[in-house]
Amino acid sequence: MNVPRPAPASRPAPVPRLSLNRWSVRTTPVDEVLAACVGGGVGGIGLWRQDVETTGLAELRHRVDDAGLQVTSLCRGGFFTAADPADRRAALEDNRRAIDEAVGLGTDVLVLVVGGLSHEDKDLAAARDRVAENIAQLAPHAEQAGVRLAIEPMHPIFTADRGVVSTTAQALDIAEQVGSDAVGAIVDTYHVWWDPDLAASIARAGASGRLLGYQVCDWILPLAAETLNSRGYMGDGFIDFPAITRMIAETGYTGPIEVEIFHEDVWATPVADAVRTIRERFEQLVLPSA
Amino acid sequence: MNVPRPAPASRPAPVPRLSLNRWSVRTTPVDEVLAACVGGGVGGIGLWRQDVETTGLAELRHRVDDAGLQVTSLCRGGFFTAADPADRRAALEDNRRAIDEAVGLGTDVLVLVVGGLSHEDKDLAAARDRVAENIAQLAPHAEQAGVRLAIEPMHPIFTADRGVVSTTAQALDIAEQVGSDAVGAIVDTYHVWWDPDLAASIARAGASGRLLGYQVCDWILPLAAETLNSRGYMGDGFIDFPAITRMIAETGYTGPIEVEIFHEDVWATPVADAVRTIRERFEQLVLPSA
Repeated sequence: MNVPRPAPASRPAPVPRLSLNRWSVRTTPVDEVLAACVGGGVGGIGLWRQDVETTGLAELRHRVDDAGLQVTSLCRGGFFTAADPADRRAALEDNRRAIDEAVGLGTDVLVLVVGGLSHEDKDLAAARDRVAENIAQLAPHAEQAGVRLAIEPMHPIFTADRGVVSTTAQALDIAEQVGSDAVGAIVDTYHVWWDPDLAASIARAGASGRLLGYQVCDWILPLAAETLNSRGYMGDGFIDFPAITRMIAETGYTGPIEVEIFHEDVWATPVADAVRTIRERFEQLVLPSA
Repeated sequence: MNVPRPAPASRPAPVPRLSLNRWSVRTTPVDEVLAACVGGGVGGIGLWRQDVETTGLAELRHRVDDAGLQVTSLCRGGFFTAADPADRRAALEDNRRAIDEAVGLGTDVLVLVVGGLSHEDKDLAAARDRVAENIAQLAPHAEQAGVRLAIEPMHPIFTADRGVVSTTAQALDIAEQVGSDAVGAIVDTYHVWWDPDLAASIARAGASGRLLGYQVCDWILPLAAETLNSRGYMGDGFIDFPAITRMIAETGYTGPIEVEIFHEDVWATPVADAVRTIRERFEQLVLPSA
């Protein structure tokens, strides 16, 4: 990771650990997002490949460095479940590019959304096996690049169409099966808060050096019509942030904590206001236990 | 369970194992549902307490017996997560009535939907503990009545508002903690199909004599706006029914298999047509592996 440059005197001190995932303010141009972070006391940013495509890798890195921000992760690689060999080769090629983009942005964490099923192929066990096989194919490139592949277990609401890895334990099983130190798991409260084995799995991730990140947002009800965009500000839903944050802290994790909210209401909010709410909720519900 | 009476000659032979959960055709009056089962080759029915309330226990039993149907379960007891002592007492009292109603209907399976969280109390571990404590309170009455309490692990989409028991393993942990043979788990494909430990957990349920039922319906996309009513006919979604049914069969389970679909489109279908589709899909996707 790059070291943030000294901030100008007028800039508020960044809140420790806090990183803004760029998708939380998806509809705001990236320059305004960087400025909102600087003005709002946010020291880290989780970027998405869409900004690399739009702005260009070198230019994006330049702007982030100029803002004095740390890139805490790149989203996203993955989509490893296709059975067709040509599709698998294309996915691996695209993931190698994603690893290189992470290097270019100065982050060592690439988040993997592993992919779902299709109506034509409902064999969940086989899809999960392909995820492990493809990550094994990718691991040497990641090791060489100094980038770690953060498997993101996804809430079972997304098993069918987005992510067949459903628990932190399953992500760790894959990482151990692959046998590379470059592979681990990222814990996103939205996806895993319900897991009866969460405390044990987070401890296991920490003990094995495979806890690669921590992301927070709340489970709110009613769900949005597009369930992917049904994530809320911490405190607006049902997740016990102090409890889960303590599990993370007990592993000795001292890395960044990304706030990653997807919701139309948040995207319709002026960016400075959204960042203020995110910061306040983070300081109330997450940071004291971190 | 009561023994079905001999069917009249004109009646089609019932499809082996097939039971219709009454909520699959929720909007149809119960007499028409019973007639549709008789005419459609369905030998079993899973009832809900709403029909007991509307029709009266003795009268409902009389009608089901007259139709020559077997009651395969009663839905539902549960809602054990309230922290307030008065609420807990009321829940236990209501569950004792539910056990008695199961006896009155001639079924030995009461399905438990264990209850969710509230915005005021987000302590998931404590809510889960209360579920176990309340089931332990209830178990003696169930034992005495000869009724088994089938904990229904619920899809994590419902953890917040409906069911804090999320996996079959967790249901079995509670059953073993309670230590009563009257407590076990029911496996509903909709709720558990995504579980990486499903095969092992079903085997464990079978080996410990705690596999109390098997219910089927599909996970379809997009989800309905009311996610509770987003269940589809087998074959319309992403669940691999032969694979899960084989897991059930391998335990030696030979009991009824209930089709339990909640969906506005199914409720808007004439009952005979819905029963025909259910029967066809059951014969195609479930029965061959059962």
